Amino acid sequence: MVAKMRERYEDSKLYRIRHSTAHVMAQAVMELFPGAKIAIGPAIEDGFYYDFDLPRTLTPEDLEQIQKRMVEIIKGKHPFVRRVVSAEEARQIFKDQPYKLELIEGLERGEVDEDGNPVEEKPEISIYQHDSFVDLCRGPHVENTAEINPKAIKLLHVSGAYWRGDEHNPMLQRIYGTAWNDPKELEEYLWRLEEAKKRDHRKLGRELDIFTFDEEVGPGLALWTPRGGAIIEEIEKLAKEVEFKHRYVRVRTPHLAKEDLFVHSGHLPYYAESMYPPMELEGVRYYVKPMNCPMHHKIFASRPRSYRDLPLRLAEYGTCYRYEKSGELFGLMRVRSLQMNDAHIYCSEAQFEQEFTDVIKMYLEYFELFGIQEYYMRFSTHHPRGLGKKYVNNPELWKKTEDMVRQAMQKNGIPYIEIADEAAFYGPKIDVQVRSAIGREFTLATNQVDFAQPARFELTFTNEAGQPETPLCLHRAPLSTHERLIGFLLEHYAGAFPVWLSPEQVRIIPITDSQNEYAVNLQNRLYDLGVRVEADLTPDRMNAKIRKAQLMKVPYMLVVGEKEMNAGAVALRKRDGSQQVMPVEEFIALITDRIRTRSAEL
Amino acid sequence: MVAKMRERYEDSKLYRIRHSTAHVMAQAVMELFPGAKIAIGPAIEDGFYYDFDLPRTLTPEDLEQIQKRMVEIIKGKHPFVRRVVSAEEARQIFKDQPYKLELIEGLERGEVDEDGNPVEEKPEISIYQHDSFVDLCRGPHVENTAEINPKAIKLLHVSGAYWRGDEHNPMLQRIYGTAWNDPKELEEYLWRLEEAKKRDHRKLGRELDIFTFDEEVGPGLALWTPRGGAIIEEIEKLAKEVEFKHRYVRVRTPHLAKEDLFVHSGHLPYYAESMYPPMELEGVRYYVKPMNCPMHHKIFASRPRSYRDLPLRLAEYGTCYRYEKSGELFGLMRVRSLQMNDAHIYCSEAQFEQEFTDVIKMYLEYFELFGIQEYYMRFSTHHPRGLGKKYVNNPELWKKTEDMVRQAMQKNGIPYIEIADEAAFYGPKIDVQVRSAIGREFTLATNQVDFAQPARFELTFTNEAGQPETPLCLHRAPLSTHERLIGFLLEHYAGAFPVWLSPEQVRIIPITDSQNEYAVNLQNRLYDLGVRVEADLTPDRMNAKIRKAQLMKVPYMLVVGEKEMNAGAVALRKRDGSQQVMPVEEFIALITDRIRTRSAEL
Repeated sequence: MVAKMRERYEDSKLYRIRHSTAHVMAQAVMELFPGAKIAIGPAIEDGFYYDFDLPRTLTPEDLEQIQKRMVEIIKGKHPFVRRVVSAEEARQIFKDQPYKLELIEGLERGEVDEDGNPVEEKPEISIYQHDSFVDLCRGPHVENTAEINPKAIKLLHVSGAYWRGDEHNPMLQRIYGTAWNDPKELEEYLWRLEEAKKRDHRKLGRELDIFTFDEEVGPGLALWTPRGGAIIEEIEKLAKEVEFKHRYVRVRTPHLAKEDLFVHSGHLPYYAESMYPPMELEGVRYYVKPMNCPMHHKIFASRPRSYRDLPLRLAEYGTCYRYEKSGELFGLMRVRSLQMNDAHIYCSEAQFEQEFTDVIKMYLEYFELFGIQEYYMRFSTHHPRGLGKKYVNNPELWKKTEDMVRQAMQKNGIPYIEIADEAAFYGPKIDVQVRSAIGREFTLATNQVDFAQPARFELTFTNEAGQPETPLCLHRAPLSTHERLIGFLLEHYAGAFPVWLSPEQVRIIPITDSQNEYAVNLQNRLYDLGVRVEADLTPDRMNAKIRKAQLMKVPYMLVVGEKEMNAGAVALRKRDGSQQVMPVEEFIALITDRIRTRSAEL
Repeated sequence: MVAKMRERYEDSKLYRIRHSTAHVMAQAVMELFPGAKIAIGPAIEDGFYYDFDLPRTLTPEDLEQIQKRMVEIIKGKHPFVRRVVSAEEARQIFKDQPYKLELIEGLERGEVDEDGNPVEEKPEISIYQHDSFVDLCRGPHVENTAEINPKAIKLLHVSGAYWRGDEHNPMLQRIYGTAWNDPKELEEYLWRLEEAKKRDHRKLGRELDIFTFDEEVGPGLALWTPRGGAIIEEIEKLAKEVEFKHRYVRVRTPHLAKEDLFVHSGHLPYYAESMYPPMELEGVRYYVKPMNCPMHHKIFASRPRSYRDLPLRLAEYGTCYRYEKSGELFGLMRVRSLQMNDAHIYCSEAQFEQEFTDVIKMYLEYFELFGIQEYYMRFSTHHPRGLGKKYVNNPELWKKTEDMVRQAMQKNGIPYIEIADEAAFYGPKIDVQVRSAIGREFTLATNQVDFAQPARFELTFTNEAGQPETPLCLHRAPLSTHERLIGFLLEHYAGAFPVWLSPEQVRIIPITDSQNEYAVNLQNRLYDLGVRVEADLTPDRMNAKIRKAQLMKVPYMLVVGEKEMNAGAVALRKRDGSQQVMPVEEFIALITDRIRTRSAEL
């Protein structure tokens, strides 16, 4: 469990170390490749990069040389010195660096910062120097290269990158590196990198036959095979149980609607770029829905509501469609069809805190179930200067809901970072960040407090005084989308799902044909109990059968030979390699208990 | 249970009686309105109509007069006499009847029959005469008006109808009537008509808050409210249980795909008119899917399959979208979004009969559960003359599968009618017809044998000889779509769903405020058992509370007063009015048993 108030990465020492190491790397490159042109070099998650324009393509041996030189520079204990300069002076300093000169122009016009990112206010122009190297940079950096542990840095690989990300610009060489506090952290990170390759959900998804994409169906539109379907069914069953317990009711809405609905909700025209284009017929335009909320609002509005009906929690596994750009699609993580664990909670202001807290508790319940130990929430709040422009002009409600959210998180010990001026137009936003076992961070879901849409749709309930009142609306999706959750879980579990979630829970392995009938009877018996079980009746030898089951990460293998058959027993071989002979009854007790309790134990 | 081989309506005596009664009515109208122009007058389901061009609008009193005159004509025992005539002679006979003259022209050109319906081959021109009335008519009719029971006919109402259904043509007056074998049948039918009005699923759907349509969402796109959602969840739970038992596996597929997929499947361009128009972006066209099959074929094709994997039964509650014409939309019966109880069974030819029989058995299982006693199947077969044109050119496979289907239905005692030359392009088709308690007939689902699509998608499995072989595919949807099934069930049960399907299973009615706490505790206890229960804590009086619950057709009302509270009991009042005081435990045993067994009993 991380600290309650999580430090923003940008404010951390690791961030400064990485940023400074990028400068050291640039110095080394310039020394080894005189005349090298440098572009930008920021710290990124888990490391840093720097983009160079070099006379030739770098080899792995070059990286070794560069890193060697970096170690020497670091050991020189050079201080990092910041200085604010005029544009004129900057141009003088970087007179041989065309990319920097282009950045200085943008800085001067107040358009971008030193990394070329757009800015709102014109920044100062600052430079940082250590040893012989000067960079155009807004910092921050470490005080001295001595803060960088030379045994905790590593250059990783080179890839091509267009200047400013534009394919019409020259292609540069980007060197990626990583830096940590100490060698142990570095080693752990390198292990995680290796693990990450093995655990890549795209690779596992294919190997374990969970999902597939098809050229004719279209990019970003996953087809879930029977094994993936089994996981989805288990997750929906879980969600429905938990939501029933929390007194949600379930609705169903269509996947498309007339343009009018999305104009009414405000998705059109502002959100149009993220939507599939319209279908037009008989003068009417239809859109596939990018979100379920407008439909749920319509259900709320379909009859008079009283305070006695609130909170009304409308839940739906509603599949939405968003047109992510082709270049941004990534396995199950960035897709175009999203089966969402959606719900909208309509409540009075007085009920809000309780409802929000219940949602948070539901998250915690799920985190515990899935063994997610590292998580935090990014809490995006408004800024008073944006009221009436960027934000709904209701300062009291902003203050009230933000206070309530903050309080609810603190009460429940949820670690969070607060980011001012990044709320949605209609209320504060909470992004839920989780880390998988290998340390990859995912945004699992976004929760949203909404005090604009209910008014847009003229939703009201009759309050206790007999007056019409507009409810607040809470958008929430603790189990995210099936796509993102299962993508995450594949990496989190490295494909070795707990028994209750395993697409195939038991593989029965008869040693010879003579046990086939026993195997099939056993299979039928388990199947009738609702267990997902297969019997391997192929002519393969036992060891080959075991190997196949292990590749599919089946949690329980039941090897049955002459002896087991005669004894009404099974030789249970778990996925972790442990083995035990037990009566069939005992195995049935074991597996039904594991499934019923959704146990993490094997 | 109806007869095993069901007679086609068109061949039945009732059909002839109704057709002949239409002629008698036309005679009566012409006598009462000299100069009346007659258009067409066919028998229809449950009755007949005739269209007239009259000098004035008919009143209910006119209908009485017409019916009175009809009775006299019928009593005259006039024979119906058929005669084939030349076009010339026909024109002479109907020289004062412009609509008939137009029909004669079409008949002469071989385009239409006597009712103006398109025909393939040029028909003979025949006339039927009884008493003084002659009509252009292909028959058949009764031998003599004596076969019509004058006490078993009734004229029902008048409505406007354009000549030939075209709004550019003159508006005629259509008189609807009905005719039966005897007065008892007529009386039953009139009762059913009355009941049908009360049971209309559109009316009940609104009153019971099951579903709603919204102008901004669009026509034919139902929004399912929490009460409708509860029914859907129960039906899906049922389907998943039954399908698990029958060894189906579940998949999930997106609701849209690239044009390529539907061109590949053959839906485009032939089926385009029934599809929503395309969405076009970056040069690619996407369509929302009108059917799930192409997606399931893609899942089949996503990995190598062996004979050991067959039959492979891919099931999905896949929502499809079809663009029904606005004028054809009707409540939940003809809609544009269809949540389908879909599955595709891939099997070898040798497995087909068993698979088909299992599907039939699944239908019977459901019919029994829902208390559907009247049903039959319309079995549409090919015709050899269409081979290679209208039908896939594989005469052996047609014969084989049709024989197998016929055999399976006979073995299982399924009543069916067989209609030659109405199969689908790719195989024989089975429409499942059910009748609700009030005698309305619905097509619940279409089953399809498919020996074309698997080949189009190059689906193969490795057979026991190690050779690639194309599987057969069986499309089936016993529970139809949620829309059609729930529409049907609303009328079938008149909104009084069995306990397990009831959106609200229990309403707790405290007599005074003093029992509110007891009521809430009881509510929580039942809720924790998974029961859908509400406590009515409004200040209404007990009788008003009971009335409200009855209007919502809640099966169990638990009235709790001082006495019940002190005794830990409830006064159970069932929807049928029966009452009984019992300990809470006893009620819990009752309701959990009813739900668990999906009992039809109250």
